[in-house]
Amino acid sequence: MKFNKKNITFGENITLGEGVRIGDNTTIYDNVILGEGVTICNDCIIGEPENDYYSDEGYVNPPTFIGDHALIRSHTIIYAGSHIGSHLTTGHRVTVRENTVAGHHCMFGSHTDIQGHCEIGNYNRLHSHVNIGQKSLLGDYVSLYPFVALTNDATPPSDILQGVKIGDYSQISTGAILLPGTVIGEFSLVAANITVSGAYPDDTFIAGVPAKGMGRLSEMPFFNAHGKKHYPWPMNFDEGMPWEGIGFEEWRKGL
Amino acid sequence: MKFNKKNITFGENITLGEGVRIGDNTTIYDNVILGEGVTICNDCIIGEPENDYYSDEGYVNPPTFIGDHALIRSHTIIYAGSHIGSHLTTGHRVTVRENTVAGHHCMFGSHTDIQGHCEIGNYNRLHSHVNIGQKSLLGDYVSLYPFVALTNDATPPSDILQGVKIGDYSQISTGAILLPGTVIGEFSLVAANITVSGAYPDDTFIAGVPAKGMGRLSEMPFFNAHGKKHYPWPMNFDEGMPWEGIGFEEWRKGL
Amino acid sequence: MKFNKKNITFGENITLGEGVRIGDNTTIYDNVILGEGVTICNDCIIGEPENDYYSDEGYVNPPTFIGDHALIRSHTIIYAGSHIGSHLTTGHRVTVRENTVAGHHCMFGSHTDIQGHCEIGNYNRLHSHVNIGQKSLLGDYVSLYPFVALTNDATPPSDILQGVKIGDYSQISTGAILLPGTVIGEFSLVAANITVSGAYPDDTFIAGVPAKGMGRLSEMPFFNAHGKKHYPWPMNFDEGMPWEGIGFEEWRKGL
Repeated sequence: MKFNKKNITFGENITLGEGVRIGDNTTIYDNVILGEGVTICNDCIIGEPENDYYSDEGYVNPPTFIGDHALIRSHTIIYAGSHIGSHLTTGHRVTVRENTVAGHHCMFGSHTDIQGHCEIGNYNRLHSHVNIGQKSLLGDYVSLYPFVALTNDATPPSDILQGVKIGDYSQISTGAILLPGTVIGEFSLVAANITVSGAYPDDTFIAGVPAKGMGRLSEMPFFNAHGKKHYPWPMNFDEGMPWEGIGFEEWRKGL
Repeated sequence: MKFNKKNITFGENITLGEGVRIGDNTTIYDNVILGEGVTICNDCIIGEPENDYYSDEGYVNPPTFIGDHALIRSHTIIYAGSHIGSHLTTGHRVTVRENTVAGHHCMFGSHTDIQGHCEIGNYNRLHSHVNIGQKSLLGDYVSLYPFVALTNDATPPSDILQGVKIGDYSQISTGAILLPGTVIGEFSLVAANITVSGAYPDDTFIAGVPAKGMGRLSEMPFFNAHGKKHYPWPMNFDEGMPWEGIGFEEWRKGL
Repeated sequence: MKFNKKNITFGENITLGEGVRIGDNTTIYDNVILGEGVTICNDCIIGEPENDYYSDEGYVNPPTFIGDHALIRSHTIIYAGSHIGSHLTTGHRVTVRENTVAGHHCMFGSHTDIQGHCEIGNYNRLHSHVNIGQKSLLGDYVSLYPFVALTNDATPPSDILQGVKIGDYSQISTGAILLPGTVIGEFSLVAANITVSGAYPDDTFIAGVPAKGMGRLSEMPFFNAHGKKHYPWPMNFDEGMPWEGIGFEEWRKGL
């Protein structure tokens, strides 16, 4: 039982790459472009219109672009005006709002809410139940674990949004809340369930209450279960990464 | 492509105000009243039955009332026995359970779960991923940010629920957890990611581990990005508020 | 209006027990077994295929088993390869991923995400917005409250997962984050919003920043609203429990 083409609704001006598959009960609104080999599962909404759609007769849906080989799992909603690179994988019930720009090979976990007007690099892994505020800026190879929030309003409520910026290869552990304007450098680790503000240099372990930089992550005794010093993690983990099977240092030389 | 009337399911005794629009794949159960100009998007369930529906042959669905000009976004579920004022806006996949009473001009963000048997005033903004326990009591102009939980059971598990009470104009920052019976006064601010219990006077900044009142919020040096002292916030923010374009003090005089 | 059999999609080799009811717009994939009296509400997906389904022509969906008298509320997704005992109740938009084994009489709240490859005992109550990592191991009569996360990767990202283990009758309060490898004994209570690691004996109250065992829970002055010492809680709460109307001590004698 695969892709029965049951109760699919298409708007106008939709471009489907070769080999696109669309699940039952899915709606694709106007001006959506799906790359080659994209799979959209059941009950999704792609190109979800912005607010004016409901009130403005002349509303034109902004283009939505999803790159090649995406696998978008059921009940996911991607707004019009998003531009996402190739090899996106989503869990279920993900929301990606308007004007989200994401790179290639990203994973967005179930129930994750990306509130739009933000930039997400390549090979980012947002696990389940992540909340990304507008104006967030993520580098490449960043992971956010469950219940992480990237906030943006330092004096709530206001109309002045300051996004969080996270550098390449950094890891934000479960439940960490990054306050507006926080800047995390590259190759850093934020501990679980802490509240972080301020700016930190690269290769920093951020922990404690109140949170502070505890020193260079690469010099800390974080040993993985194989007994190896784990950070910088790309030396020890490559699953799904471009250096898979090559080694991180070898791969970097070739860049 | 707008409101194709595809695969909509209606129960009995449904009252639709003028200009109601209903999205595809949406189910409206018995005894639902939708006001004028209400828009229900795709894949919603309105008047979701209570438990007895599944076991009791004689079950009668309690009335569900949604006031004029609501915009209910896709995948949202509103239970029978809810009564919601005008101008409700929801994100996606909101759950509003039975016996929720909400005022006018509320916004409930994506993935927010309101567990019913609670009262929510006017102009409340519940952002994404908020969890509202039974017996919660919210005033007017209250905002709850992502991952805020209003709890209700001081000795879990028990059958004795003590709700949280939040006064008008108060703001509960991302990830704050309010323990059962907490009382927040008016014009207060709860800091991000803290755990709060007890009762606090109006105009209090609540922060720290353990959380405590740090003094009068209006006297604290919270400057917004325009360089103005931000609290009381209604002096500095009016988007969507009844004092928009009038000024808070002028508007209050007219009450 | 009940179970209209509208837009239901069935795969092959599905076994439906007597009295099974299936809601509109629900999809049941191949090799699903539903026990007697199971109710699946609208917009659910049961037997959701694993990844290989999308790429492997010869993919065979692993069997999914849901025991008698389950009530699975709308928008819930249960993966192929799950085995769940009788009397499951879910909220809305629950995700249960592959190779989840759960006992009888469990409740999984709305938006809860069980990431699979884990074992969940009997009479567990996972409230809304709970996040269960792979390799988690829950005893019987355990409750997890909103925004609880059971994590599993001590050096993220890595491929070495160490699950959390929770003993019978233990209660994990709202927002608590249990770090990889944490072991909570039986009859224990974890306070709200704390970060827990390490191993604890039975009957422990775990609280504080940093979290530690504060002593024997049964000896602490936790009085419920009826003025009774509440822990061990089964002496004071029996709703839906096998000792309901019998008394915990009497029931235990009969085991």
